[in-house]
Amino acid sequence: MQLPKSLVPMEPSTADGLAAERAKASFSVAAMNEFIVDEATRKGEAKMERIMAAEPEIFSVRTKYFMSRHEKMEHALKIGRRLIELLREGRITSDEITIADSMLDINGPFGLHRAMFIPTLENLTTDEQKRLFLEPARRYEILGCYAQTEIGHGSNVQGLETTCTYVPETDEFEVHTPSIRACKWWVGSLGVTATHAIVMAQLVVGGKRLGPNPVLVPVRSTADHSVLPGVTVGDIGPKFGFNTMDNGFLMLDRVRVPRINLMQRYITVERGGRVSRPPSVDPKVAYGTMVFVRTQIVQRTSQMLARATTVAVRYASVRRQFAGMADRAAAGGGESPVLDYAMVQYRLLPLVARNYAMYATSQAFTRHYEQSMAELARGNFAPLKELHATACGLKRWTSDVMIRGIDTCRHACGGHGFSQFSGLNEFYANQYPNIIWEGDNYVLSQQTARFLLAQVRALRAGAEVEDTQTTQYLRRHLDAGRVAPAAPTRFAGRSVRELAADPQLQLDVLGYRAATQAAALADRMEAGQSWNRSLVAMQRLSDAHAEYIVASYFRQHVQTLPPGSPLLPVLSQLAALLFLHTLEQNAGDLFRLPAPFSAAQVADVEDALARLMAELRDQAVSLVDAFGLHDMTLNSALGRSDGRVYEDYLQWALEDPLNRDDSGPAIRAAWFERYYRPVLHAADAKKQARL
Amino acid sequence: MQLPKSLVPMEPSTADGLAAERAKASFSVAAMNEFIVDEATRKGEAKMERIMAAEPEIFSVRTKYFMSRHEKMEHALKIGRRLIELLREGRITSDEITIADSMLDINGPFGLHRAMFIPTLENLTTDEQKRLFLEPARRYEILGCYAQTEIGHGSNVQGLETTCTYVPETDEFEVHTPSIRACKWWVGSLGVTATHAIVMAQLVVGGKRLGPNPVLVPVRSTADHSVLPGVTVGDIGPKFGFNTMDNGFLMLDRVRVPRINLMQRYITVERGGRVSRPPSVDPKVAYGTMVFVRTQIVQRTSQMLARATTVAVRYASVRRQFAGMADRAAAGGGESPVLDYAMVQYRLLPLVARNYAMYATSQAFTRHYEQSMAELARGNFAPLKELHATACGLKRWTSDVMIRGIDTCRHACGGHGFSQFSGLNEFYANQYPNIIWEGDNYVLSQQTARFLLAQVRALRAGAEVEDTQTTQYLRRHLDAGRVAPAAPTRFAGRSVRELAADPQLQLDVLGYRAATQAAALADRMEAGQSWNRSLVAMQRLSDAHAEYIVASYFRQHVQTLPPGSPLLPVLSQLAALLFLHTLEQNAGDLFRLPAPFSAAQVADVEDALARLMAELRDQAVSLVDAFGLHDMTLNSALGRSDGRVYEDYLQWALEDPLNRDDSGPAIRAAWFERYYRPVLHAADAKKQARL
Repeated sequence: MQLPKSLVPMEPSTADGLAAERAKASFSVAAMNEFIVDEATRKGEAKMERIMAAEPEIFSVRTKYFMSRHEKMEHALKIGRRLIELLREGRITSDEITIADSMLDINGPFGLHRAMFIPTLENLTTDEQKRLFLEPARRYEILGCYAQTEIGHGSNVQGLETTCTYVPETDEFEVHTPSIRACKWWVGSLGVTATHAIVMAQLVVGGKRLGPNPVLVPVRSTADHSVLPGVTVGDIGPKFGFNTMDNGFLMLDRVRVPRINLMQRYITVERGGRVSRPPSVDPKVAYGTMVFVRTQIVQRTSQMLARATTVAVRYASVRRQFAGMADRAAAGGGESPVLDYAMVQYRLLPLVARNYAMYATSQAFTRHYEQSMAELARGNFAPLKELHATACGLKRWTSDVMIRGIDTCRHACGGHGFSQFSGLNEFYANQYPNIIWEGDNYVLSQQTARFLLAQVRALRAGAEVEDTQTTQYLRRHLDAGRVAPAAPTRFAGRSVRELAADPQLQLDVLGYRAATQAAALADRMEAGQSWNRSLVAMQRLSDAHAEYIVASYFRQHVQTLPPGSPLLPVLSQLAALLFLHTLEQNAGDLFRLPAPFSAAQVADVEDALARLMAELRDQAVSLVDAFGLHDMTLNSALGRSDGRVYEDYLQWALEDPLNRDDSGPAIRAAWFERYYRPVLHAADAKKQARL
Repeated sequence: MQLPKSLVPMEPSTADGLAAERAKASFSVAAMNEFIVDEATRKGEAKMERIMAAEPEIFSVRTKYFMSRHEKMEHALKIGRRLIELLREGRITSDEITIADSMLDINGPFGLHRAMFIPTLENLTTDEQKRLFLEPARRYEILGCYAQTEIGHGSNVQGLETTCTYVPETDEFEVHTPSIRACKWWVGSLGVTATHAIVMAQLVVGGKRLGPNPVLVPVRSTADHSVLPGVTVGDIGPKFGFNTMDNGFLMLDRVRVPRINLMQRYITVERGGRVSRPPSVDPKVAYGTMVFVRTQIVQRTSQMLARATTVAVRYASVRRQFAGMADRAAAGGGESPVLDYAMVQYRLLPLVARNYAMYATSQAFTRHYEQSMAELARGNFAPLKELHATACGLKRWTSDVMIRGIDTCRHACGGHGFSQFSGLNEFYANQYPNIIWEGDNYVLSQQTARFLLAQVRALRAGAEVEDTQTTQYLRRHLDAGRVAPAAPTRFAGRSVRELAADPQLQLDVLGYRAATQAAALADRMEAGQSWNRSLVAMQRLSDAHAEYIVASYFRQHVQTLPPGSPLLPVLSQLAALLFLHTLEQNAGDLFRLPAPFSAAQVADVEDALARLMAELRDQAVSLVDAFGLHDMTLNSALGRSDGRVYEDYLQWALEDPLNRDDSGPAIRAAWFERYYRPVLHAADAKKQARL
């Protein structure tokens, strides 16, 4: 299909519009990029972009929006195979494969072999087992998955029903699925790929149940992928997103494996059935892994939200609608860029501020994690509990902000946000599981709240309390763990303008909010309110804590800049925007503080927010440019870095198999004969039938 | 693939669990169904369910989650063709086709021919044009679409760039697309199907621009569907949802059509170019159509949200997780149904209350619309403006509640909500455009706010103000359009318990909130705040108005029941739940009322809400059963009416082409050779290469 020759160029052009936005930058985009994105990501993405751009026949994802699920899976396999080849050739590292997967938004079946199977083997095996299982896994001679969730059991690991029973007669374990409810489900890479599964099962030795333990079960032949006897395995079917992954199910009918297949790092079953647990391993180390996984989620959510804010801000700056309703005259007459509208600013700019805070948090939090791991290596487990509670709160908050944020960005693009070519839809669906996995966000908040409540109780009891960022703010704003309603707050009497200008006062407001919420909930629970009745309050407490921590980490990361850095003014504005937006979104909380805001102050917050957004509006495109995302990653007509939005959008439609000259005519002709002709020419058909 | 023979039945069974929930009903589900669902829907769905169940080879949608986009489109065409045959056979009506489309959640290409093309021809044509165009359209001898939106122009109809220029020499119109930005886009049924398009274009006669007017342009041959000269037409490509629809694009290169093809109801161009506008037609009638479309959206959103609440409530009542954390002991020991958890109740039960209010609103609003149309027929246009403003507010509020609500329901189902077999994903994506089309929700709120502000200003000016439901509450709570801060409110001094028990007091609180928000915004705008700076406040005002109206319509519809009806107790509880939830979600507003709530009162609201949810929990399954949705419509393993959740979920996975014995082995074997073998046996491959 060809475009009509009669078309004239658009005036004004969207490409010129985007360039004009960029000319307004008050800071160096390159310097901001170096500050806000961690070095490993920046360098890794630049390298992988080069490598993948050189092999478009393998790595191009432009056609993925046209693919059926099976085509997508095959595409992911093709990419996955090539990346392993590059790895074997020594051209890239395993970490760079992870970066590539993320850039392409392709979650292929080999990814979990690296991300879950190998690390589990590293953590849970003895030296002998490492030789037997880990080394072949590293050479991709076996392909693995981690099978924990059952169709009827999600968060409750203790409730798993699959059994792993020691059989002394043959010195084997018998792994068994008693009922459908125990069918393993959601297991990534199991649907088609895995030859081996680490199965979480209730260990039974000598008739005694010893709790869930992991055991390695071969499920498919490595020679020809045929399913092994006693194994029923398959793909769980299509999902909202993540369809390049073969999430699978697994049922085992009394499948026997050798005794060595039980992961033995934390438990040993000897020949004959004697059970022992090695004394030297502290299970608290497992916290470290959980925290690590969540630091990665926080990092990923920053990057994923950045894709959406980049697309939406760029498109809002070149999309024009109506004239003269915005406060300033549209440049060059005609319709106004929609970014001039307060309602569009209100939806996008606080999200950009949150996005900056999330990137900064990711870096500061990772540093914090690494320090704690160093402490751990010296035998100090104390910081880990706080870190775990904060990680849970951050995982919930950042993944929620990301998912709601992508949705906001999509809607802010108007109807075109709904097209796959916006880049915001398949991507949204692929990211959606982040609010569910690694602890459902609604369940996870209990971990954060539980820790905060325990600290408050300890402060009340005068017990010794570890010095952490959390206990510091609880101490600062509470009086021995209790609210002192008459005591002046540190921000009392300050105007909203003063608050917005002073980072420490901002932290004081947010810390005061979280601390007094924790104390109030502790009061109610001391007065007999049940855990169940407290769950709603725990969500809010977890978020109030996270909002304090995010602001605090954002500030910590900004403080790594030298004084006088030209990046500081706009970063301070972003921090103030984040702060005012948090207040505005939680006005109900402000009125309920022991030292409450007045209605006039809350109105001031709204005014200050509106003013600040209008000030930041001209920096918006440069701020998202600084995330440094490649066009290959955005995979979006609306978010193109060159601003040629409508040209590409239309071109992409022409590439649809329904429209392409080599495929469209045949499809359309078949449909005409089958469906359209009988509808349009029913009378003829009847006539012919009568002849 | 077969299930292992060794599986034993699940204990307790989910089917028994659902039956046990139903036994707790305090009301007749059948009577509630008759009350809450309008008669036409109930009867139409029952009839279509019978007809479609008899032809599963055409109408079954169980396999749709496995289909590629082209397969889905073809499926929709097959269904669409069969429904037209049934229509021609006189077995069903056009309205019943609409019901069937909605039940199946299949938006096929013939739907818009009925829903937009034919009504537009009915409204905008002369008698001669009716004979030429409308009659063949009704016989499906031409297939049409309505082409308004351009790739660069959404809400701003005046800004459309396609031109329709009168050519006196040949007595024709020349319809032309000047640039890519004027390319028609999103046009439903245009991508593959339409033979004719009603094109909205800037009418130019004698060099004078006369504004956008509709003109009928043939685009494809009715004989063989070949594209006509000068026409560039195709499908706009895949979308987030709605992929059974062939939304299309259209560019015209100076395409000529006869003068008769200009829709002439509101404008006439005579031979030679004399332009006239018939005097008798009142453009206000157009408001009527807009309101009608929005009454339909309100009705549909109720039904669509009901699918999600039905699935989520049923599944939450049989899904068990952890024991003993809920306040009451789990029945029969073991894990608790997740519906026992306060956090699950908090997410689902207020949504059920909103769903009831939306169904009731739909019925009361439709009655209100019909009364207004009768007034209109008597020449009284006055009620129409209020109705239009309210329709805009309701469209925004109900579609937003529906989309956020489906998402909440999906997440409340945990990981399984993410599976296509939950029924909540493709469906969610298909419904998503409701927040964008027929007025983007963010733009639409301005219509509602504009009307409220105009009424407030009129009351202030002492001007005559039409008596409507809106002006009634503005008069009741304002003093000549102004807030009287010292004046006692009608609910002053009442406890939350009293408010929750008294429907009139509930309306007073909600009406007071909306009225004082309107007055406050009018104050600020009188003091010089620009329209643009007021947009955020307008969103809130529109929603506050909608929440008053929904509560009011809910009450009106409940009042159609006879006194003493056994349905009243639970309906009163739902109304109270809706009210308390609205307050709880908008605590910030309560503190900012001129007569504000205290912090203690807001805490009372939360407590009362929690108590009421615990009371209603046992009615939840019966309340959603009363929506009367067929399993065919839910198309969900989790929401099955018989509660056999996991059995069906697993069975559905076995039906995936990847798993089926007739298709799976070939796909998997091909992938093994292409991708898995080279990865697993790289060393062999190298060795072989060396030999």
